Amino acid sequence: MTQLLRVQNFTVSSDGFGAGEGQSLEKPFGHADPGKLLAWAFATDHPPVGPSGRGSRGLDDYFTRDYARNIGAEIMGRNKFGPQRGPWQDHEWQGWWGDEPPFHTPVFVMTHHTRPSFTLSDTTFHFVDDDPATVLARAKEAARGRDVRLGGGATVIRQFLDAGLVDTLHVVVAPTKLGSGARLWESPDELLDRFHQDVVPSPSGVTHHLFWRK
Amino acid sequence: MTQLLRVQNFTVSSDGFGAGEGQSLEKPFGHADPGKLLAWAFATDHPPVGPSGRGSRGLDDYFTRDYARNIGAEIMGRNKFGPQRGPWQDHEWQGWWGDEPPFHTPVFVMTHHTRPSFTLSDTTFHFVDDDPATVLARAKEAARGRDVRLGGGATVIRQFLDAGLVDTLHVVVAPTKLGSGARLWESPDELLDRFHQDVVPSPSGVTHHLFWRK
Repeated sequence: MTQLLRVQNFTVSSDGFGAGEGQSLEKPFGHADPGKLLAWAFATDHPPVGPSGRGSRGLDDYFTRDYARNIGAEIMGRNKFGPQRGPWQDHEWQGWWGDEPPFHTPVFVMTHHTRPSFTLSDTTFHFVDDDPATVLARAKEAARGRDVRLGGGATVIRQFLDAGLVDTLHVVVAPTKLGSGARLWESPDELLDRFHQDVVPSPSGVTHHLFWRK
Repeated sequence: MTQLLRVQNFTVSSDGFGAGEGQSLEKPFGHADPGKLLAWAFATDHPPVGPSGRGSRGLDDYFTRDYARNIGAEIMGRNKFGPQRGPWQDHEWQGWWGDEPPFHTPVFVMTHHTRPSFTLSDTTFHFVDDDPATVLARAKEAARGRDVRLGGGATVIRQFLDAGLVDTLHVVVAPTKLGSGARLWESPDELLDRFHQDVVPSPSGVTHHLFWRK
């Protein structure tokens, strides 16, 4: 089987931003309210973090359930990993997710400031200062035949799109505006030269955009 | 984790029939054309039978991909297994699916005319003459902690619905009329006293109905 690079459950505002401005330790999404942006996912039976078995099993739950299916590694940007910028002051920061990160695979964090790998439960974080194609090759090797999830943020997804490396995208457009921040797109139509698209309005109020290579 | 009983990818006509009349060896769906009824599934990247990797990866493909996720056993009616009625004349018939049935788990065939179990590749067929609750208990044990898929046909699904044993249903309504045959429902509204519902029109022309227990 071909190993795919997949964007899964990446949520943007109706004006195309994946996070707001001014990310900090207290505000991982900057001025964006993650509870509002990601409300659709937390209402499902399989939320991104926290126990399953308590929410809706409708359309949105198909997508939250699909998050980990056949995924063997994740690639993320440094701003998804943490609020620090520039050289590491120390190595105490181990991500937002506590002792049980929700990845359960190797994770490759793209950064110009590398540091030693470390493991929390069944997730190992590696820090890589390479171009997207090189990072993807390393992630595919670590995924042992499974797919690689491109975890975001928006800037990293755009880098991989510009390099022509993304196979499928599931982007969720939430019914909320941000005005500024980390932009994924001006409009989903930007991808239509290279991707097929299904647009699926959910009863929850978000719209799922599914893209796969032409 | 709770083991669920799940209906997956069960397709009915716009007037509620899962198969036509006059099932025979030559016509597994009676007067219904399975190529028309199931066209939505065969157009996806993960069709019910045949190789994957050649079709659409849009919304419908989420459902065909989900068919086997966390399934440890299937329950089906005798009419899904074959066109014979009454006592078996011989045991040569081993189902419609050839040497590689698409189930890959134990399968429990409900029939008043039992016969010895047999195995084809990684699928084992058992023939059981019991009430739905008893068959479900056997299937859950065989599923070793995973969920059980209720494979149909319509008559068997109604039996399990009437017994209050179904946890989730994914029913696909195809844009074609049959007029008569094995009926699942007069209207999906019949389930709304016991189930939540999401109705999701697909760009392919079918409508996905998702039900989960209240």
